[in-house]
Amino acid sequence: MAGAITLERIMALQAAYIRCIDNNELEAWPEFFLDQCLYKVTTAENHKNGFEAGIIYADSKAMLIDRIAALREANVYEKQSYRHILGLPNVVNNNGEEAKSETPFLIARIMHDGRTDLFATGVYLDTYRAAGNDLKFAKRIVVCDSSRVDTLMALPL
Amino acid sequence: MAGAITLERIMALQAAYIRCIDNNELEAWPEFFLDQCLYKVTTAENHKNGFEAGIIYADSKAMLIDRIAALREANVYEKQSYRHILGLPNVVNNNGEEAKSETPFLIARIMHDGRTDLFATGVYLDTYRAAGNDLKFAKRIVVCDSSRVDTLMALPL
Amino acid sequence: MAGAITLERIMALQAAYIRCIDNNELEAWPEFFLDQCLYKVTTAENHKNGFEAGIIYADSKAMLIDRIAALREANVYEKQSYRHILGLPNVVNNNGEEAKSETPFLIARIMHDGRTDLFATGVYLDTYRAAGNDLKFAKRIVVCDSSRVDTLMALPL
Repeated sequence: MAGAITLERIMALQAAYIRCIDNNELEAWPEFFLDQCLYKVTTAENHKNGFEAGIIYADSKAMLIDRIAALREANVYEKQSYRHILGLPNVVNNNGEEAKSETPFLIARIMHDGRTDLFATGVYLDTYRAAGNDLKFAKRIVVCDSSRVDTLMALPL
Repeated sequence: MAGAITLERIMALQAAYIRCIDNNELEAWPEFFLDQCLYKVTTAENHKNGFEAGIIYADSKAMLIDRIAALREANVYEKQSYRHILGLPNVVNNNGEEAKSETPFLIARIMHDGRTDLFATGVYLDTYRAAGNDLKFAKRIVVCDSSRVDTLMALPL
Repeated sequence: MAGAITLERIMALQAAYIRCIDNNELEAWPEFFLDQCLYKVTTAENHKNGFEAGIIYADSKAMLIDRIAALREANVYEKQSYRHILGLPNVVNNNGEEAKSETPFLIARIMHDGRTDLFATGVYLDTYRAAGNDLKFAKRIVVCDSSRVDTLMALPL
């Protein structure tokens, strides 16, 4: 079955996603999502309290495409880059056509002058769906551990 | 054979273990261990020199349960949380019923006010045994790279 | 086919490589490479601009062996150790006999007095070849994200 979701496909998707961002191939980033999707960045505290409002909120691939266009115009990428390090996905649910997982992340930020800091840690709460031969994100909720997330944050996480 | 130990089962156990701690589900933590077990936190220097005394030492699941009860009473968890990022387990020995591995780790600590720091790095030296359908730790020796481990450290690593 | 390259073998090689360095078994490090090989450490900026000159450059296993001998003489290892944390390898090419992958890394450095810092992040650009039953590096290009790489850097990355 071409569409069946396996851990191997999930791991390949996760690895390709961070490679896309860390290599500054941002225009390809929205392609990891279904047309109707949810992409949200929030904090652990807000998430625990059930607050809907996140730091970033988009509910369609079109909004993600707009976001990248805005970033490119603002030229944010020139000033910093990210390096994502992921843990193994915990697959919490998988019926073969839709799956959910939790994946820990750590992101280092490298400023233009070379300074590197521990930018963010947290967990990706993901829902995947098979779209033909591809696996895509139906939902990606990025839960940052710290409530002190840099408000100038602009790159996708 | 239900009990056979595979890399996939080892990886699933490692991922579930850190999820338990990072999600603050500490009461479930002792369940990752056999009733008769060894859980020890030590430093690379002490480990190399063969010193038995560790920073934390427990040789039964009952001691681990007591430890969590004490932590909850002291309310330590309110003040900080962890984010574990693991490398791939190096399986150094596996006879199908008992296996040993070495797994690198990095732990970020997130304080209540949002400050995040690189809390500890090191390696887990583990011995697994199959207990029915479950895989459990017979031994987990947590070797911290730095000799400067925070003496107020209280959460399980 | 004994020589076929699989993701599992690649992951095992990556895990063994960092274990060798982080355990201070440096004499074994050149054995991860073919006799004719390329080992280069460079920065993302130099790599993007196509500059050949790297921070470290070696094009044979013999040069790697020399490098370790020099390090031991200078006694650098006494003063610091590393802890590598790797992401999943992105296999970008694999014909069964030769494969290429990109693997993100983060290295924490632990000084002798216990101070730990985020030493380097980046990506390994690797070419593997099967040598009998072993998988070895034909090329390992270590691309560090930051242009501010510690010039006293001496250990293999």
